[in-house]
Amino acid sequence: MKSVEDGLLLDFYGNLLTDKTRSTLELYLDDDLTLAEIADTENISRQGVHDTVKRGMNQLREYEEKLGLIEKFTSQMAIINEAIELIDDNDPDGAKALLEALKTEI
Amino acid sequence: MKSVEDGLLLDFYGNLLTDKTRSTLELYLDDDLTLAEIADTENISRQGVHDTVKRGMNQLREYEEKLGLIEKFTSQMAIINEAIELIDDNDPDGAKALLEALKTEI
Repeated sequence: MKSVEDGLLLDFYGNLLTDKTRSTLELYLDDDLTLAEIADTENISRQGVHDTVKRGMNQLREYEEKLGLIEKFTSQMAIINEAIELIDDNDPDGAKALLEALKTEI
Repeated sequence: MKSVEDGLLLDFYGNLLTDKTRSTLELYLDDDLTLAEIADTENISRQGVHDTVKRGMNQLREYEEKLGLIEKFTSQMAIINEAIELIDDNDPDGAKALLEALKTEI
């Protein structure tokens, strides 16, 4: 049930969560512990961990809905890669045009 | 007392505010109304507008402290401009190196 997108959400918006919620999500997503392992480590119930993870992920998704940083990030990354390809293809003017467009996107 | 930075804060984080706070800040910062004018328009006291503006700006600054998007934006913009200059100076390889570095920044 863990996805790359979940990890990105935590990277982008983790600082907006409370310390407790963020550290639980880090154990779950970054350290890949199971809910039961986190419950053991933190000395709380598995259900408690489950609730914290669920609520935290919902908060992160709400931030993405409001700010859309991951969507922006993905689009910027694509433009930068395209500009690099154009430089490799000996088309610096094309790369420049893309970079000028990128400035309006960030 | 209004600064360019204030406008940027509203651009970046305005969606995290309540509708009421955001629209008051838009009248104040984007439309450049005075507190008294906003009070008239919204039919609330000048003091009420003042409090909403102050509280809203504090929230925006807190978001910047936590996410640092404006700092990131400023740094990315500088790198993109530098890459464009390198292309203009006939140094596409230098521009490419900068763009590779930029990918680790976004």
